[in-house]
Formats: sequence, C-alpha cells, structure tokens
Amino acid sequence: MTLAPSLSKPEPMSTATLTVDLDAITANWRSLNAMTRSETGAVVKADAYGLGATRVGRALVHAGVRSFFVAVAEEGAALRQALGPAPAIYIFSGHMPGDTDMIGDLDLIPMINSLEQMIRQIEALPGHPFGLQLDTGMNRLGMEPNEWAALRDIALGQAPRLIMSHLACADEPDHPMNAQQLQTFLDMTAGINAPRSLSNTGGVLLGEDYHFEMTRPGIGLYGGLPFEHAHPVAAIEVPVIQCRTIEPGESVGYSQTFITDEPRRIATISAGYADGIIRALGPQMHAFADDVACPLAGRISMDLIGVDITALKSDPKTLDLLGPQQTIDMLADMAGTIGYEILTSLGARYARRYVGG
Amino acid sequence: MTLAPSLSKPEPMSTATLTVDLDAITANWRSLNAMTRSETGAVVKADAYGLGATRVGRALVHAGVRSFFVAVAEEGAALRQALGPAPAIYIFSGHMPGDTDMIGDLDLIPMINSLEQMIRQIEALPGHPFGLQLDTGMNRLGMEPNEWAALRDIALGQAPRLIMSHLACADEPDHPMNAQQLQTFLDMTAGINAPRSLSNTGGVLLGEDYHFEMTRPGIGLYGGLPFEHAHPVAAIEVPVIQCRTIEPGESVGYSQTFITDEPRRIATISAGYADGIIRALGPQMHAFADDVACPLAGRISMDLIGVDITALKSDPKTLDLLGPQQTIDMLADMAGTIGYEILTSLGARYARRYVGG
Repeated sequence: MTLAPSLSKPEPMSTATLTVDLDAITANWRSLNAMTRSETGAVVKADAYGLGATRVGRALVHAGVRSFFVAVAEEGAALRQALGPAPAIYIFSGHMPGDTDMIGDLDLIPMINSLEQMIRQIEALPGHPFGLQLDTGMNRLGMEPNEWAALRDIALGQAPRLIMSHLACADEPDHPMNAQQLQTFLDMTAGINAPRSLSNTGGVLLGEDYHFEMTRPGIGLYGGLPFEHAHPVAAIEVPVIQCRTIEPGESVGYSQTFITDEPRRIATISAGYADGIIRALGPQMHAFADDVACPLAGRISMDLIGVDITALKSDPKTLDLLGPQQTIDMLADMAGTIGYEILTSLGARYARRYVGG
Repeated sequence: MTLAPSLSKPEPMSTATLTVDLDAITANWRSLNAMTRSETGAVVKADAYGLGATRVGRALVHAGVRSFFVAVAEEGAALRQALGPAPAIYIFSGHMPGDTDMIGDLDLIPMINSLEQMIRQIEALPGHPFGLQLDTGMNRLGMEPNEWAALRDIALGQAPRLIMSHLACADEPDHPMNAQQLQTFLDMTAGINAPRSLSNTGGVLLGEDYHFEMTRPGIGLYGGLPFEHAHPVAAIEVPVIQCRTIEPGESVGYSQTFITDEPRRIATISAGYADGIIRALGPQMHAFADDVACPLAGRISMDLIGVDITALKSDPKTLDLLGPQQTIDMLADMAGTIGYEILTSLGARYARRYVGG
C-alpha cells in the first residue's frame, strides 16, 4: 500500500462529473458587456456561484474583466491568489472586524456599508482604496439616506473608487421598486464624480438608465434567468453503478415511495442530495440518456438515485442530470426555488472538468 | 501588496463559523456501540455528512473505530490519506471502472454490487480484499437473489471481508419492510461464516436481531434523528454586518416579501443559501441571540439574511442559526426535508472550528 494515489490513475469514474464551459461564461459576459457603454465587472462570490472562482476568474480576466465582486474578504483573498495583482476586487460586506490585514495586504476594496465600517477603514487603513454602498430601499446592505447625509462629505473627500447600490426586484422588470430605487440612487449620488454602479444582471436588462459607469452581472454569466439568451454553462453526467429489473410489487429506495405494478428496469446512479441534487427535485426531475427522459424511481438519497430506464434499448454507462435538456432554471421550477440556488448547491464531490477559457 | 495572507491574521470575522463538536460525535458513536455486541463502524461518506471526513475520521479512530464506510473510491482515497494504513475503508459503490488503482494502491475494500463488479474485481485485483452487497428489497445497490444464487459459491470462495445489505425503512420502526428485509438477509446469508452487516443508525435502534457482526451508523453520529438521544454536534454562528431601523411601509430583501407596518430594527447577517441556509427555510426559521428567537425579515439571499432584531435590547455582534435552540431536525421540518440534507448542504464557505477530539 502507498499513501499517494498512483500517477497513472485514469479519469475518476465513480463520482459524477460537473463540466463547466468557460467559453460560455466569457461569451455571456461579452453579451452583457455589449448591452452597455459601462465597464462590466463580474460577480464571483460563493465560489463563482458554485462553479469555481479560480478557474472562472482566470477565464474572465483573459476575456477582459478588470473588476470582480465577492461577498466577504476571505473570498477576495482566495481570488487575489488566483488572479494576481492586476484586477480590482470589491468586497460587498465591506470592512468587517478581523478583515483589516486581508484588505490591506491583498489590496482588496471594501464596499463600506455603515458609519462604523467607515471609521474602521479610515483608522486602520488610511489612504487605502475603498468603495461605498448605499441603501436605496432593499434594507440589506449599505448606508441609509440619513447616515449618508451625515457622512457624505467626509467619504467623498477620501476619493471612493466606486459608489454602488443593489436592486431588490430587478428580475421583475415591471416592478415599481426598480424605478423607485433608481430615483433614490440618483438623488443620493447627485453631483458626485465617483464611478457609480446599480445593476446586477437584471439591472443590465432594464436599460441604459440603470447602467451608470459599472455593471455587476452574476447569474447571467452562469447561464441563468433573467438573462434569457445566456449560453448554458454547467452540465452534470453521472455514472451508472448497476442496473436491475424489478417485478410487480417491488419498491425502490427509502420508504417505498416508488412501487411498480409491472416489470421495470432500474439504474442506480452515483449522485444524490449531497451533490446538490436536492431532495425536493425528486418527483419531477428526469435523468437523460441523450434526449430520452427517464423518470426518477423513488427518493433521491444522499449519494444515489434510482432511475427508471425501461424506455432505453440498452443499459447506459452514464445519465445526464443537468444540460440543455434540463437546465438550472427548469430544475429550479421543479424544486420551488431559483436557478441561483441550484448552482450554489452543487457541492464538492464532483469531478470538475473545465472546457475552454 | 503581498500574495500570501499575513501570519498575524486574526480569526475570520466576515464569514460564518461552523463549529463541529468532535467529542459529541465520539460520544454518539460510543452510545450506539454500547447498544450492540457487534463491531460498530462509522459512515463518513459525503465528507462526513458535510462536517469534514478528515477531522471526524481521526477523532473516531482515537475513539476506537476500526471500520469506515464511504460512498465512492475517491472519498476512500482521501480518507486513507487522513487516517493512515490501519482502519478498514469500505466503498459502498463497489468497484467501478477507473477505480482499480485507487482500490489497490490505497487498500480500499469495495462492496461488490453485481456480477460485473465481481468479474472486474477478480480480474484486476486477484486476492485483494472485498465485500459483498446484497439487495434485500430496496433495489438500490447490491446483488439480486438470483444473481447472488449464481455467484455465491465463487464469491464465498474468495473470502469476502463483509456481507452487507441496507434497510429502506429503518427510520420507521413499525414499517413491515424492516422485518421483510431482515428475513431476506437471513435467507440469503444462511450458512455463511463471513461477518455480516445490515444496520444503519435506524437499524441499530431496531434491536439485536438486526445487528449481526457489524453496524454502520451515520446520521446518529452527527446528532440527527432517528437517534433521539444523540448529542448535538454542529452549531452555526453568523456575524452581523450592520443594523438599521426601518419605518412603516419599508421592505427588506428581494421582491419585497417583507413589508413592515411599524418601525423595526433589522440586522443583516453574513450567511445565505450558498451556505446551506436553504431558501425554503425562510418563512419559518429564526436567528437566535442567546435564547431570544428573532424572526427572519425577507427572503434568504445567497450571502445575506435580514433578521428582525426589534426584540433585542442592543444590536448583536453575531446571531446563531444552528444550535441547541434550533437543531438540524427542526430546520429539516421547516424546510420539508430531513436532517441529513440540512447537514450535507452546509457548504464550503464557513470558518470551521473543531472542538474536542
């Protein structure tokens, strides 16, 4: 026995494969970039929505992205290691206690959300770049109008790199909140020369009034709604462990939720809810053999799923759970959630294969 | 700027902390071990149900565990690196194409599920240890009775290390499937001298008839039902990024699902569905300041959650999402799922703190 895997190990075959099309991500970025006259940044928080911030970030740098956005300083630190010193890395949560060394040493740009954060930034890192986040009605992150009124002159005297806010309803173009937030952002930033940013992917699609000097698409890069013309980015292919024929009266999986009344052929595949194939998908999703949709049989378990492959002419080696036949937004509808959560749930066990970039 | 984080970096403060109590895990293992006269193994698949197979596995070795179970060979390889050569590591998915080098080099024990896997094992790794998995009615993994009848003499001639099956309804003690599977397992293994294993956590609780020579608890180690007397294992503490007062008519979060009709104090905390705080939990879960339950305000977003902290006397620095006040099984009920999925969804962004072990 040796404790290092042998160098001749072939491609893993017992875990599922998550393929990420980096060319599709950069094509999506270019499409969104072409819709505005602004700089187009890229949101790569939550490990690039679960798809891998290191590889996604490098591909986007090659495509021309100069500004990245992450949720917390730790994500910014990891991204800096991956991308080197050139790109700007903005931190939505701002400057939290304990973040000072990371922000300073790794040249991160905190988006300051409050008076408390502003004081921390100026005291701990005088002269270090920062941005400002304003609340225009979502009441999640950013300074309130009264806080901003008190702090505005001091903050602007420190030359902020970016002033931003975030839209609460941009995925619903007709929602009156969009225009309200736009007007509030215009009021709060009137007469200011610093670059401004209001729009996520949905905001880009709302039109020029929402674009300002920088946009920040996230989900659109990764192939999800509301960017209807996005290229699909992620695909999941799962190995079949074994196939069996079941007879009338037999059940499949936990708690006998699937009982057959005629002979069926069942494949057991090597993925489950620990891989983000969330249990709530069970009754509605399919596994695909090329274009043939095979219904699931029984509950999704942690590492395994039963699939009714009776319609297939022969036992398959693999089945597809995510791809052009069944997209992240289709899965989201089935599970009663949004495509964003389908992506961020995918988990760590996949063999990840990156193509393009 | 340097590209390595400074050595003086304090504890991370902008990500949430997931605390894993290794002493609670080993205490749960000892309790389950004390219920039987069998060897008690430990299931650490899916990265020990999301809690970290390396740290959990090492703690369990120190507690006396000699046999570990994982889903796929890749997990076994990682576990071998963490635990060294002594423990037995069993692979539920058996011997898949591409697994041979890992199984051979790292001394993993595949649980052979089919004639196809048996041939692969004997041809590729003659004399290498293996086990056998039998299907007793779940129709997920393992040999069917007819397949087993044909293969039994050959397989037993190769001295299998373990013969196992898996219960489909063990979490429901009164389900008639339990006794049916037990009888089938007894029939299929009659007259065999090899060690046998049938029971997960639920099976241990079903009583001595189900124990055989080895048990394989998983969820019970990690503090979940059906082991009602388990010690809680995991806790989540989330930093507060900022607090604000909102006025009547104001909303919080995406799509304005929370609109207040009186002044409220709102905290924004640094965790979201990318951290496994799944969106479906939104309407029902609370964030806790010690024992005070604070309702969520608005939708859970990817990295952020709004919490109504009006009931608190002062703004908190952190709030708890998982702990004795709100357990994995309580969260599971709120989200319409099971504690297992709450655990495996927790994600990679936490600062993980291990205590005990």
